[in-house]
Amino acid sequence: MNQNTVGQSSGDTLVSEGKTAEHIRRNFASDNVAPVCPEILAALGAANVGAVPSYGADPWTERLGVRVSEVFGTEVRVFPVSTGTACNSLALSALTPSWGAVLCDESAHIDNEECGAPEFFTGGAKLRGLPSSDGRIDPDLLGRTLEQGAGAGAHSSKLSALSVTQATEWGTVYGPEHLREVTGLARAAGLAVHMDGARFGNALAHLGCSPAEMTWQSGVDILSLGATKSGALAAEMLVVFDLARAADMDRRQKRAGHVWSKQRFLSAQLLAWLEDDLWLRNAANANEMAARLARGLVRQPGAVLPFETESNEVFVVLPELLLEALEAAGFGFYRWVTPPGVDGTLIRLVTSYDTRSEDVDALLGVLAAVE
Amino acid sequence: MNQNTVGQSSGDTLVSEGKTAEHIRRNFASDNVAPVCPEILAALGAANVGAVPSYGADPWTERLGVRVSEVFGTEVRVFPVSTGTACNSLALSALTPSWGAVLCDESAHIDNEECGAPEFFTGGAKLRGLPSSDGRIDPDLLGRTLEQGAGAGAHSSKLSALSVTQATEWGTVYGPEHLREVTGLARAAGLAVHMDGARFGNALAHLGCSPAEMTWQSGVDILSLGATKSGALAAEMLVVFDLARAADMDRRQKRAGHVWSKQRFLSAQLLAWLEDDLWLRNAANANEMAARLARGLVRQPGAVLPFETESNEVFVVLPELLLEALEAAGFGFYRWVTPPGVDGTLIRLVTSYDTRSEDVDALLGVLAAVE
Amino acid sequence: MNQNTVGQSSGDTLVSEGKTAEHIRRNFASDNVAPVCPEILAALGAANVGAVPSYGADPWTERLGVRVSEVFGTEVRVFPVSTGTACNSLALSALTPSWGAVLCDESAHIDNEECGAPEFFTGGAKLRGLPSSDGRIDPDLLGRTLEQGAGAGAHSSKLSALSVTQATEWGTVYGPEHLREVTGLARAAGLAVHMDGARFGNALAHLGCSPAEMTWQSGVDILSLGATKSGALAAEMLVVFDLARAADMDRRQKRAGHVWSKQRFLSAQLLAWLEDDLWLRNAANANEMAARLARGLVRQPGAVLPFETESNEVFVVLPELLLEALEAAGFGFYRWVTPPGVDGTLIRLVTSYDTRSEDVDALLGVLAAVE
Amino acid sequence: MNQNTVGQSSGDTLVSEGKTAEHIRRNFASDNVAPVCPEILAALGAANVGAVPSYGADPWTERLGVRVSEVFGTEVRVFPVSTGTACNSLALSALTPSWGAVLCDESAHIDNEECGAPEFFTGGAKLRGLPSSDGRIDPDLLGRTLEQGAGAGAHSSKLSALSVTQATEWGTVYGPEHLREVTGLARAAGLAVHMDGARFGNALAHLGCSPAEMTWQSGVDILSLGATKSGALAAEMLVVFDLARAADMDRRQKRAGHVWSKQRFLSAQLLAWLEDDLWLRNAANANEMAARLARGLVRQPGAVLPFETESNEVFVVLPELLLEALEAAGFGFYRWVTPPGVDGTLIRLVTSYDTRSEDVDALLGVLAAVE
Repeated sequence: MNQNTVGQSSGDTLVSEGKTAEHIRRNFASDNVAPVCPEILAALGAANVGAVPSYGADPWTERLGVRVSEVFGTEVRVFPVSTGTACNSLALSALTPSWGAVLCDESAHIDNEECGAPEFFTGGAKLRGLPSSDGRIDPDLLGRTLEQGAGAGAHSSKLSALSVTQATEWGTVYGPEHLREVTGLARAAGLAVHMDGARFGNALAHLGCSPAEMTWQSGVDILSLGATKSGALAAEMLVVFDLARAADMDRRQKRAGHVWSKQRFLSAQLLAWLEDDLWLRNAANANEMAARLARGLVRQPGAVLPFETESNEVFVVLPELLLEALEAAGFGFYRWVTPPGVDGTLIRLVTSYDTRSEDVDALLGVLAAVE
Repeated sequence: MNQNTVGQSSGDTLVSEGKTAEHIRRNFASDNVAPVCPEILAALGAANVGAVPSYGADPWTERLGVRVSEVFGTEVRVFPVSTGTACNSLALSALTPSWGAVLCDESAHIDNEECGAPEFFTGGAKLRGLPSSDGRIDPDLLGRTLEQGAGAGAHSSKLSALSVTQATEWGTVYGPEHLREVTGLARAAGLAVHMDGARFGNALAHLGCSPAEMTWQSGVDILSLGATKSGALAAEMLVVFDLARAADMDRRQKRAGHVWSKQRFLSAQLLAWLEDDLWLRNAANANEMAARLARGLVRQPGAVLPFETESNEVFVVLPELLLEALEAAGFGFYRWVTPPGVDGTLIRLVTSYDTRSEDVDALLGVLAAVE
Repeated sequence: MNQNTVGQSSGDTLVSEGKTAEHIRRNFASDNVAPVCPEILAALGAANVGAVPSYGADPWTERLGVRVSEVFGTEVRVFPVSTGTACNSLALSALTPSWGAVLCDESAHIDNEECGAPEFFTGGAKLRGLPSSDGRIDPDLLGRTLEQGAGAGAHSSKLSALSVTQATEWGTVYGPEHLREVTGLARAAGLAVHMDGARFGNALAHLGCSPAEMTWQSGVDILSLGATKSGALAAEMLVVFDLARAADMDRRQKRAGHVWSKQRFLSAQLLAWLEDDLWLRNAANANEMAARLARGLVRQPGAVLPFETESNEVFVVLPELLLEALEAAGFGFYRWVTPPGVDGTLIRLVTSYDTRSEDVDALLGVLAAVE
Repeated sequence: MNQNTVGQSSGDTLVSEGKTAEHIRRNFASDNVAPVCPEILAALGAANVGAVPSYGADPWTERLGVRVSEVFGTEVRVFPVSTGTACNSLALSALTPSWGAVLCDESAHIDNEECGAPEFFTGGAKLRGLPSSDGRIDPDLLGRTLEQGAGAGAHSSKLSALSVTQATEWGTVYGPEHLREVTGLARAAGLAVHMDGARFGNALAHLGCSPAEMTWQSGVDILSLGATKSGALAAEMLVVFDLARAADMDRRQKRAGHVWSKQRFLSAQLLAWLEDDLWLRNAANANEMAARLARGLVRQPGAVLPFETESNEVFVVLPELLLEALEAAGFGFYRWVTPPGVDGTLIRLVTSYDTRSEDVDALLGVLAAVE
């Protein structure tokens, strides 16, 4: 599968939401087109009380550290930031020297969709995307790559970190054994392990395992945990399990311009998101809606789903006629580069915390109505 | 005056707000300890409607560009970001090559309070702080520095940009003539000009001139315009007057992790701030309260005010006895390094959009009550 | 062909030169194991006369600029440096912004053997290696890559430069038409063009065309022209055809520590190398010896030569028995990763300006003697 | 004293060597205008024998490591490079994180003459030049600076390293006690210590102490040891005393393009320089000639020598009439910025290993002859 995705910013390929009946939510372009979920917006208002020390010396930030340690069942250090790119890049900068290389899947967001941010934050480390069939790193290929790297001298960038994406860019999810196999190989070769968890909640909801099991118990040193795609306004956090890696992270953050002066409003979002398992409920809804969508698409003549739908992204190849029908009905989605030998175009449909059954059914209904 | 300020993060020197009568706002530590002003919080709620294209392809961002061009009376390019450090550093990165040098006042925030962010974003450019008596660059010294730089060869960093802070770190404000004199010298020597406008509104409210007069008409290429200290949640914007400097700024922003996916919530803050001159009203209140405070302090025996109070920061040297009284009464402020030959300690008191006369008077009352 | 070459620094795979009969030169590991050729050593001595202004303000450097412009038949700017890695990386830093991407062959030295130097000098630009069968970029693949890049937005690194290696890492040479096709595609898409000419002389000697034809007349903006592998002590030069790209190159060079104080000794090497076509004679000898070697290997039972021998590198797959015989006889060479489906191991044999027929024949004789 | 030195590259202020009697060496502009000393040139020729493994796997490099350890009386790691800027910058990159600050004298070469190279190699660390009267860091000022830095939070660059220059840029030399006082303060505050030893041999020859005493026994972690100004062609070396700091230095070096393929020629220079105390004899001659020059200048009416002459640089203020006489007689030197309140112009006169008594006397004779 070709990772040369058509970015969301290329407006010409983004079918804008139409002007049809308002109660149907038609924008399946991404989970970040959704609004802020009510609980989080309310939390912002609740935090807007009086003067509070700035730059993280506030009660919300303090509570957040405690809460995340509880969620992961171990002592962690938490650094809230406003974007996933910052979160990933700050994490990687603590895991690789500037003359290092980071191994990742060839589809990885860090290598394809962040305009070189990891290179910027790490001072020029190299990203090496390994080919795979479904966004999950192949242990055999990883093993061979690590072996070759071990024999290389100072002419080669030093293999320093592995970055896994959970859930992956293709909507698949690493099972616990697969995850431990690749992190185990990396750690045995002296590499640190980063997890890009922009859709971590969705992976967790799919697997039903504990946050601890999917992270530090499986060899993850730093997790980029994303809330924005799951209902927040703009809130992600580095969750650092290897506490030594947290040293000077505050200065890394500051010199990247990623410390909010009114940080209470960043921490308050994240606290609300973790409160009463809101994050898991939001993820579960998005996953369910994606599964409903996938089930409907599988029954659609001419549709080919190249990947298992294990989180909240559905990739499907559809004939152009059907795509035009969706567009005419005002549905929003991205067109991907179509793999060779397939008739039609690969598109991505993303569900979110506020997608409803009627939204999915409306989309399926449009397809079913095409003769 | 010594620029080695005690940072806000050194909690031991920050006197926390006490538990005294709730209706008095006692935290004068910074204008960023204040909450979000109601109009801006309301705007966030108003923007929380349905699915909207992400990464800036939203109506709020579009309107913001138009509105800022109106405010400045010329076509500008606007890039909203969430912190002042990011805003300054992105601006500088478009004004100097990595082998360049940026001239600024020795008190400048970019050189003292941003943990090397400008060096990071510019790829290693050098900041050169010029000494001054009050935070405003001395044209004579600037002239001599530029002359020496002009004769230097490839062994020296190339003098590439001048950064002026308006209002300055010491609460003073460049008058239009002073400003044009220093920017004129810089431009004549081939340097670009940046203005750090974290408190630009306060300077404007003090001078009563137009935004255009204080920026592009006075030779400024890029302005960092801050709203956070003036009532926003987390919102600043690069205002680029020299449109050629805006080229690829979107990629600079992205690779620094400073593009919000749900950007409508960044733009909505800034739109509300500019609406109905809210930004100027907020600035005017902060300035008035600072002036009231300064007037009271001048009358206080033992108090020495080393700078004119021209915006919303008041610096005053007070005997330790008075400082202890303020702390005992729950007032929050920062202690600065005390200049030699002065009896007492230099402190900073900052007013904001939500400081009221009674808050100022309460502080002055505490001082007056000390025998 | 796998580009994961075993670096020269991994001593265990480098078969050291034996202690056998001294008059045979047995080290085929690289052209940089050779000594300095007599004309260049003599030139160093000749330059060692009296006090001379430092940092390039010397007569040798001045003459070098004139001489290189003559050689290339156009006005160029020349920047001498001591290593190929510096030469390539400085060149790329003038051709791509830090948020850019450089397209190259997947075998390229800049992406595999320079420990991230291009990333360092460019401030974090991304290298994208395109797969090929023989080290020469495939125009079709390049065309598709450029097309996809053109549609990408600010989430993707900006395609900014193409780097071609002439001769390639596999010893092949771009013909003039092939070269113009790929540079033409790149230029049409707005990319700048760099040529890594570590073995430029060998390519030129193979093609018999003019230096101009192989560079600026074929769309090359900057050439990294290497003399070290062709008889110099430590001397390479950036030859800048697009004069605007030379702006501030002196400062790029200085801040990378690549300006010699006694620069006459760098320029004197390069002048001597270009004098009386020494560079072409050295290259021609190396090529001839490689051709002689290849002709002999082709006749060797069990030998497979995966690439045409068009410069001074010969790649050959040989059965382990033969490799052991070579090692036992004291011949030095590198083992490469063996491609799948082949019986034996891929090795590289490099000839140089001082390889002689008897050296080649001695190697072939060892192979022939194995039963 | 103003550190805004007129760089050597500004040719207009460099008085070129005249065409007068050849046997007098008139170029006092720098010690790097001198040729290579015969012993070192001979060593290059002696190393030019046959094929030798590249990139440092050669016998000369191996012997160099042993020899330098002997010279310093402890196990060290040695990394030879071709320029002082590379040497200093690589050293600093191993002593400070990119968010750190390096304290140095305001006259330091690293802050004034290297076009931002330390910033480049460190990824953007900040240099903070401390004012001094004679190029030697004042322990009191250093103490206060360290104290303020200790209290600063993540808004400030982290004070990470101290760099001392021995001999200093003004030709003065730290005595052992002074040196230990400043390094002791730095180490107590958690800073690493770098010594810029571009003229280390001259300082050593002046003090008569051991290399060990002036470095690791006085708290130095890495020494930049320069041979180029003392007779080499282009050869400097990092001498790493804190062995942990040597980790990955080979990759730092490689990605900066500072590993020679034919490294034997770099190591051979340094070996010859250390052989039979050539380095100390060269330094002693340069020092003696500077002392002779200073003694003569002190007797010259109108001459003011602002610094003690303790190595091979003499700074003197001379009336314009005398300077014109020197220039007319073909003597080469640099003009510095003249300090306020002084009649005349400050110039620098540098002696080297090949300056002779008659050269010094000829210069003094020209001055004496002016009426």
